[in-house]
Amino acid sequence: MKFRVKAWSKTGRSRVGELELGSCPHTFETPALLLSTRKGLPHFISPQLLPSLPSPDSFLLQCNPLHFIEGIPFETVSRIGGLHDMLGLREYALAAAPRDSDVCIPESNSSNKFGASFETPSGRHLIKPIEYMKMISSTKPDLWTTLADEVPAWVSQKRNRTSVDRTVKWLDECIGQNVTGGAVFGSIVGGSSIEERQRCAQEIARRNVSGYWIGGFGLGESMEQRPALLHAVVTNLPEEKPRQIFGLSLPEEVLQGISAGVDLFDSTYIYDLTIGGLALTFPVNGTEPHPSDYQLNDNVSDFTKINLKATIYRKDESPILDSCNCYTCQNHTKAYINHLLNVHEMLAQTLLEIHNTHHYLALFRTIREAIKGDRFEEFKHKFIQGRREASVL
Amino acid sequence: MKFRVKAWSKTGRSRVGELELGSCPHTFETPALLLSTRKGLPHFISPQLLPSLPSPDSFLLQCNPLHFIEGIPFETVSRIGGLHDMLGLREYALAAAPRDSDVCIPESNSSNKFGASFETPSGRHLIKPIEYMKMISSTKPDLWTTLADEVPAWVSQKRNRTSVDRTVKWLDECIGQNVTGGAVFGSIVGGSSIEERQRCAQEIARRNVSGYWIGGFGLGESMEQRPALLHAVVTNLPEEKPRQIFGLSLPEEVLQGISAGVDLFDSTYIYDLTIGGLALTFPVNGTEPHPSDYQLNDNVSDFTKINLKATIYRKDESPILDSCNCYTCQNHTKAYINHLLNVHEMLAQTLLEIHNTHHYLALFRTIREAIKGDRFEEFKHKFIQGRREASVL
Ligand SMILES: [Zn+2]
Ligand SMILES: [Zn+2]
Repeated sequence: MKFRVKAWSKTGRSRVGELELGSCPHTFETPALLLSTRKGLPHFISPQLLPSLPSPDSFLLQCNPLHFIEGIPFETVSRIGGLHDMLGLREYALAAAPRDSDVCIPESNSSNKFGASFETPSGRHLIKPIEYMKMISSTKPDLWTTLADEVPAWVSQKRNRTSVDRTVKWLDECIGQNVTGGAVFGSIVGGSSIEERQRCAQEIARRNVSGYWIGGFGLGESMEQRPALLHAVVTNLPEEKPRQIFGLSLPEEVLQGISAGVDLFDSTYIYDLTIGGLALTFPVNGTEPHPSDYQLNDNVSDFTKINLKATIYRKDESPILDSCNCYTCQNHTKAYINHLLNVHEMLAQTLLEIHNTHHYLALFRTIREAIKGDRFEEFKHKFIQGRREASVL
Repeated sequence: MKFRVKAWSKTGRSRVGELELGSCPHTFETPALLLSTRKGLPHFISPQLLPSLPSPDSFLLQCNPLHFIEGIPFETVSRIGGLHDMLGLREYALAAAPRDSDVCIPESNSSNKFGASFETPSGRHLIKPIEYMKMISSTKPDLWTTLADEVPAWVSQKRNRTSVDRTVKWLDECIGQNVTGGAVFGSIVGGSSIEERQRCAQEIARRNVSGYWIGGFGLGESMEQRPALLHAVVTNLPEEKPRQIFGLSLPEEVLQGISAGVDLFDSTYIYDLTIGGLALTFPVNGTEPHPSDYQLNDNVSDFTKINLKATIYRKDESPILDSCNCYTCQNHTKAYINHLLNVHEMLAQTLLEIHNTHHYLALFRTIREAIKGDRFEEFKHKFIQGRREASVL
């Protein structure tokens, strides 16, 4: 892994970096989005379709080794050559973490000193560091995060302290297995306690890791609590190493993270939109929305997204966005996507996911340009203001 | 549409032709397979993945206007520019017919003098020629077949006669609507009656159509009955026009059709294999199968196909076929496909469908080369013999 910061905001901690991972031939600019996957597969987009997404932005994938617990034996994955070879994704960068938002939910009540517990569709699994490291050594990701004891925002100060102690101990146990290959990101927890967040960041910053994974967000803390918690973490981390976060997914939350100096984000938001039949339409590239572009006769559409299940799109022969150059907008009409949704054809989700991914990656590009031009805080303010106005119209 | 026969078998009626359709830029060699679709979409293979299949062979698609009855309004399809534009398949040749094997099944008891009845997931639909032609003029296929009154093999001679009378009448009514654009294939029926097959073919041969659609097969007739029925049809048709058939799907049945002089086939067999978790492995290109290549410890695999659900493939790190250059075999192992099937990931079907389509199209290529080299009947005999031996092993 190689990482270097190449531009800083003068106002605030946001920054643009350059990231290289494993044998992936691409260089990624950060802040960047990691596309989430299920069993190593991007949601709704077959591996063969991935090349139609913007390059290199879409070559950065998040994967979860726990998804394979009840499937193929880890020894077989290993003998095939790891996930890259098994999934046919050799040009892609794979970042592994044991948590995700829709399959493996951390279950802090059942975690104990031996390992972290996850609630999954196949029941509850207690994962110990040694087992986790077997998964990592078999799946061979380019980057992996250490096992974390994540807790929700409402636990006691004592539980927060325990979670930090365990997470630091597990980091040492994970690294102690001496699995070679991928870059290690040290997990940082501490719930909604400023002191524990600081303590955890300071402890982890002393370890020999390539970067940091900031866990324990998106678990009940409020938008207002978050900046101070992020500040407590990031100010205790070396500036030259990358920082990944999980659990910030709305555009407003991503902007909060970027302001705090976070470099890597997850794409849960895209998945949630697509599942709901929604398509992103907010302006990127600083162009303003034209109210006349939208037909807002349904309950869910606003100026930031439209609900393609709505009857008004049944005969709408225009693409989601005239200005979008994604595969979906170049080839299909709203009427066709509305039809596919009505008849429960999975191509609806594929087309929506392509558009939404395209659109969200475009937002990240715009953000990077804003940071480089030292206009990020202004962009953030205008963007949030615009979304707020749009959603009350 | 352009069609010319460019090579004949000296022994038998099999032939190689060249077909051009609509504005599709490709020239297809026949005998050819039309890939079947559901609501215009190829099974399991997103439109964006189609280019990974062999070109130009995979650019020939079968579509069914009846699939859109309960979906998008036909006027909207028309305003979008027809199926080519709506589906984003502008380079593809689309051949329309109202029958298919898994969504619209002809229901001869409910057909009457006004129209043909089809059993569909959304109930029974009686389709009259004028309604059918509205669908054709909206969907704008490159080729369409006239409405047929198909009957199963066991109906009375009287019912066979009625079906021919109706099918001829409906052809005149369909053509009478003067829908311009696609080439017209006249439907030929007659069930299992040699005389009615002859009479129908003679009647339709007198009409101004570009080719022929041979219906009423795959509806209960035996393999032994079929050659005489096909002979009765084909010998009454002009040689210079193409002949399409529906309902012959096993390799042995396709070879029967080709021997009789049929040029175009449907791909129901591929779909059935994929649904069953089966991958084709029979030798094409004249290479003999090596028994040691296969592990035949399960109940369904034989030397012509393997059942990837079988436990023996759980740790098999080789591709379906080492010699196959399809996307699936170039990128994935049997173990991974077995895993995907076990965890019900739809990518399993996508990968199987890609391989099976690739393999079946290769068989068609081999058949065309055999006809050109005047070795077809020999190839057919060896192929059927080999499959028969394989399936009793
Ligand atoms: Zn788009
Ligand atoms: Zn293959």
